[in-house]
Amino acid sequence: MYEIGVVYRNIARADRAAADRLAAFGSATVHEALGRVGLLKPTIRAIYGGAQVSGTAVTVLLQPGDNWMLHVAAEQIQDGDIVVAGVTAECSDGYFGDLLATSFKARGARALVIDAGVRDVRVLAGMGFPVWSKCISAKGTVKATLGSVNVPVVCAGALVAPGDVIVADDDGVVCVPAARAAAVADAAAAREANEGAKRAKLTAGVLGLDMYAMREPLAKAGLRYVD
Amino acid sequence: MYEIGVVYRNIARADRAAADRLAAFGSATVHEALGRVGLLKPTIRAIYGGAQVSGTAVTVLLQPGDNWMLHVAAEQIQDGDIVVAGVTAECSDGYFGDLLATSFKARGARALVIDAGVRDVRVLAGMGFPVWSKCISAKGTVKATLGSVNVPVVCAGALVAPGDVIVADDDGVVCVPAARAAAVADAAAAREANEGAKRAKLTAGVLGLDMYAMREPLAKAGLRYVD
Amino acid sequence: MYEIGVVYRNIARADRAAADRLAAFGSATVHEALGRVGLLKPTIRAIYGGAQVSGTAVTVLLQPGDNWMLHVAAEQIQDGDIVVAGVTAECSDGYFGDLLATSFKARGARALVIDAGVRDVRVLAGMGFPVWSKCISAKGTVKATLGSVNVPVVCAGALVAPGDVIVADDDGVVCVPAARAAAVADAAAAREANEGAKRAKLTAGVLGLDMYAMREPLAKAGLRYVD
Amino acid sequence: MYEIGVVYRNIARADRAAADRLAAFGSATVHEALGRVGLLKPTIRAIYGGAQVSGTAVTVLLQPGDNWMLHVAAEQIQDGDIVVAGVTAECSDGYFGDLLATSFKARGARALVIDAGVRDVRVLAGMGFPVWSKCISAKGTVKATLGSVNVPVVCAGALVAPGDVIVADDDGVVCVPAARAAAVADAAAAREANEGAKRAKLTAGVLGLDMYAMREPLAKAGLRYVD
Amino acid sequence: MYEIGVVYRNIARADRAAADRLAAFGSATVHEALGRVGLLKPTIRAIYGGAQVSGTAVTVLLQPGDNWMLHVAAEQIQDGDIVVAGVTAECSDGYFGDLLATSFKARGARALVIDAGVRDVRVLAGMGFPVWSKCISAKGTVKATLGSVNVPVVCAGALVAPGDVIVADDDGVVCVPAARAAAVADAAAAREANEGAKRAKLTAGVLGLDMYAMREPLAKAGLRYVD
Amino acid sequence: MYEIGVVYRNIARADRAAADRLAAFGSATVHEALGRVGLLKPTIRAIYGGAQVSGTAVTVLLQPGDNWMLHVAAEQIQDGDIVVAGVTAECSDGYFGDLLATSFKARGARALVIDAGVRDVRVLAGMGFPVWSKCISAKGTVKATLGSVNVPVVCAGALVAPGDVIVADDDGVVCVPAARAAAVADAAAAREANEGAKRAKLTAGVLGLDMYAMREPLAKAGLRYVD
Repeated sequence: MYEIGVVYRNIARADRAAADRLAAFGSATVHEALGRVGLLKPTIRAIYGGAQVSGTAVTVLLQPGDNWMLHVAAEQIQDGDIVVAGVTAECSDGYFGDLLATSFKARGARALVIDAGVRDVRVLAGMGFPVWSKCISAKGTVKATLGSVNVPVVCAGALVAPGDVIVADDDGVVCVPAARAAAVADAAAAREANEGAKRAKLTAGVLGLDMYAMREPLAKAGLRYVD
Repeated sequence: MYEIGVVYRNIARADRAAADRLAAFGSATVHEALGRVGLLKPTIRAIYGGAQVSGTAVTVLLQPGDNWMLHVAAEQIQDGDIVVAGVTAECSDGYFGDLLATSFKARGARALVIDAGVRDVRVLAGMGFPVWSKCISAKGTVKATLGSVNVPVVCAGALVAPGDVIVADDDGVVCVPAARAAAVADAAAAREANEGAKRAKLTAGVLGLDMYAMREPLAKAGLRYVD
Repeated sequence: MYEIGVVYRNIARADRAAADRLAAFGSATVHEALGRVGLLKPTIRAIYGGAQVSGTAVTVLLQPGDNWMLHVAAEQIQDGDIVVAGVTAECSDGYFGDLLATSFKARGARALVIDAGVRDVRVLAGMGFPVWSKCISAKGTVKATLGSVNVPVVCAGALVAPGDVIVADDDGVVCVPAARAAAVADAAAAREANEGAKRAKLTAGVLGLDMYAMREPLAKAGLRYVD
Repeated sequence: MYEIGVVYRNIARADRAAADRLAAFGSATVHEALGRVGLLKPTIRAIYGGAQVSGTAVTVLLQPGDNWMLHVAAEQIQDGDIVVAGVTAECSDGYFGDLLATSFKARGARALVIDAGVRDVRVLAGMGFPVWSKCISAKGTVKATLGSVNVPVVCAGALVAPGDVIVADDDGVVCVPAARAAAVADAAAAREANEGAKRAKLTAGVLGLDMYAMREPLAKAGLRYVD
Repeated sequence: MYEIGVVYRNIARADRAAADRLAAFGSATVHEALGRVGLLKPTIRAIYGGAQVSGTAVTVLLQPGDNWMLHVAAEQIQDGDIVVAGVTAECSDGYFGDLLATSFKARGARALVIDAGVRDVRVLAGMGFPVWSKCISAKGTVKATLGSVNVPVVCAGALVAPGDVIVADDDGVVCVPAARAAAVADAAAAREANEGAKRAKLTAGVLGLDMYAMREPLAKAGLRYVD
Repeated sequence: MYEIGVVYRNIARADRAAADRLAAFGSATVHEALGRVGLLKPTIRAIYGGAQVSGTAVTVLLQPGDNWMLHVAAEQIQDGDIVVAGVTAECSDGYFGDLLATSFKARGARALVIDAGVRDVRVLAGMGFPVWSKCISAKGTVKATLGSVNVPVVCAGALVAPGDVIVADDDGVVCVPAARAAAVADAAAAREANEGAKRAKLTAGVLGLDMYAMREPLAKAGLRYVD
């Protein structure tokens, strides 16, 4: 249950170095390294392709059709943050456009993840300010009702606490608990370490069946080949 | 972000009397009394009409296609609880049927709220064990992967902590923080207190325009009547 | 495009007798008799089964999350009307509950058709006030922004003008232009006239293939039977 | 890929006794007994609750907005059949109503399963002719384009061959290959045989954790209890 | 309710200069300037990014699976028009491809907005003929049933009258009533006039909180800061 | 109904030359040439624009959340194949990423069509390995449960047999039965043959109304022009 009408100014951000390291692994590898939890639903998509970022979450709880709290959140942004916004009810309005993006960027934000719509998407792409959103809509919002900033929020089905690390790319968005950022980065690095060798083998035509020694477990599971 | 593989045995349940009082108000009145937060998305529906319950949440975090943790949760159920289950990823499988319902009921559970599918719905209706679910599906699940019990879960977009009060009826499901249960019950009672008088006036043909003194604010907002 | 902030008090309602006759035919027959236009999308469903009504449309244009105009509309209701409400943007909130239903019923309304959510559905069923809606939601609305009453509205993809005849049952909702109500009632009656004879034949095992003389056109279209 | 414009008159129906036995187990048990395949997607729902049937499939391939082939199919129905209809493209029209139901019933059909819409649903319920459909729509169809009868069809994502056994109830619809009907009925009976004992234990408060001996595998999987 | 089988040849197009001016503001600004009405649902998307157009609406009412009326509409196109097509029922077929685009372009059309599917999308992008559609589908249509041209149509939930101005870009599609085109263009220009100054301030790190003087109303609404 | 746990090693692939010819026509023309059947639902989309391919189907039946069978399928791939994967239940997980793509490509596969999610989409685009999928998701899968390879599968509502020809581009994906590949290629070529002349006429401003001689049938159907 949400706390409404509160702005927490002091949040425990994940270790900066760990947060920054996570971007390079991408959401898929980080999600694996984290034990397959923390993924936002694939209903959240990048508004333009190719961006790959990580950063510490400043969270925002919005009311439907009302983007007032995004302005409040701007003041809480520090360099290296990613703003993550949930809404208290389903809404497809365009909460965020080029002016807010200009402000967020000036404050040091790296991206926005929002479980609602955004607009001015061509301008946002031109500015290089990446956004992951539920939809795109020209419909604006009002500034009338309080939500909160830096309370835990649900965004696209995932729970995001302020200070958690967000990793986002074309595959999706994953949330890493602040306390586990460094460990997850290490685990992700370990996963990647032997991928080069695997890729070389597969390129040479070696089958995953052999490389991963799957033939025996498949036979044991009863797989039958018919000529 | 979820904690996986943990069962919390001691949870702080909301005050029993307050939790029990809330059922009678129904989800709509409680949602208003709570300040319009805490509502699960309307994608969650009752599998049969007419049930209206409240109870304290025992939460379950499930893995997709795997209902193992519902069996683990059964042991944590106390009289007056409602089991609330979220899933780490979208899944429409039938996680729950008549045998589990028999067990839950025997343990004292009043209902299940699950962000996935259930089955044996005709038998469940016959047993009078109410369920609010995302869908109905004959497809069963396995018992292979750990989730957790009594950690905070996201269910249909809402955050539910163990011990919170769940109020559910044909209008939907709302989650009341344990600490606010009594206050919300009072607020709900206050809302209802003067509904009888209002209903009588409206039945007699008095308009809401007059009863709520809306004519002036409407005129001020610029409403124009054309004959 | 919508006119905002206006209430038209004098609307040209369809002929009462024709409007009343249409209920008995049901939405499917009326839709056929009308030439297969005017049907609201099947996303609009009855909140309880078994109701079958017709009436003249009082239209309401609502803003998302705001039911103010339903109160304004109540004053414009006359005996035999059905209130039809569109929203300027997608919204699943519960705009309408038992108090408004009490008021609408007292004013003579026969039903509500709304491209959004409603609540108190069990009470509405108990009152016998039928509603066709997009969804059911405990989430209430505010009273802050003007819409309009008795302007043409889009409801579930269909255009409804004030005074048109609405026919609604378990199969759906259809809108008949006021000017055509009598003709459509006649056409619907003609369709029904020989249904009894058809039903008797089909019950006796006569095939539609023979009753409708389909064998020749099927053969001409190239249908091939394989033994 | 579909064969268009063909009616196969001689199909190999599943053994009648086996087909008839399957109804009593219901779709969930049969789906388990079958190895968790053959289930139609839960987008297909019963138009009224409480029906539970099994029968041999007469399949129909329909064109969007065109129910001609349902009339052709009627002639191929034998006692104990269930008509299963797929469409060559998504369509929500009402393909089937009370007259076709009268004809199907007179020919011996037990039910219709259709990946599209139906209408006259109140009459169908009154007749006791059960239908599982994707939606309900008053919108009728034309009779202009050929499809096929008794070719394999895809219905709600499942492949159904003519003569297969269909089992349908409030939990969903499952398709059992004709050749496996007897074996699946035996497997389903075996599943049910010890359910009574289980239910008695669970009613008495025995936990599934103990009854199914889950505590050890859970501990092995690493489940941790926190007091 | 729709008029079927009619082509209106003489429509009152919006003032050409005003219609042409609106493109530059984009759909979001125009939607605001219009008072937040007239927006098509965000289910309608551009088939390729970057196009931004305005023009006067030639409207088409299509039947499901039938694109005959698009050919009829071609003759009614004048330089600077945008064709807007609604369908009498949900349909995802590909109504429009490169040949029709060639014809529309030759007649002076600037774009197509259609509440259904289109195909040949790569060729359309190559031609630079922008389309906003509900989906993309290779499935073609027939030419068998009449609809209408230049009657008011519902497209993606919005009412569009022939001659209205359509403004479309990557954010969506908005419909401006012909009579208000000039006034809306002026209002949009006024909105844009001071955006440059705002953007400069925000770039310099000034907060919206201060620039828009939000601190006092936020405090009045009860916003609480916690350190 | 599916056969589980089987790999068919010898499949009757469509004639190579015919299979290869079909790519150039694109999915829309091939779908027409085939008689408007065989199209996968438009829920399946290319993960990047511009690819246009054809090839012979190696089919895979997957279990939800489990990509084991994709590894098994890799061994069955021959030069010129396209892997087509269905799932026994709805699943949006990311079954396929850059390592599997490396392997598939090394084995000679031209593309993947999958009724589920994929990941590493930026890498896949960089590799030039085209994929048509239901969604994009960073969520990985396990390797625990058998499916099958080279059995007929349902993919996005269409039935695909091993060896059939798959044609895929930005408009969608169509499946051509192996036996009809050459005939369909001829029919597609015939359709295209006179498109150049048509395009020239339309570019010159000739109307489809005249080029296709539609005026008379339109008048016969009752089309009315109003000035």
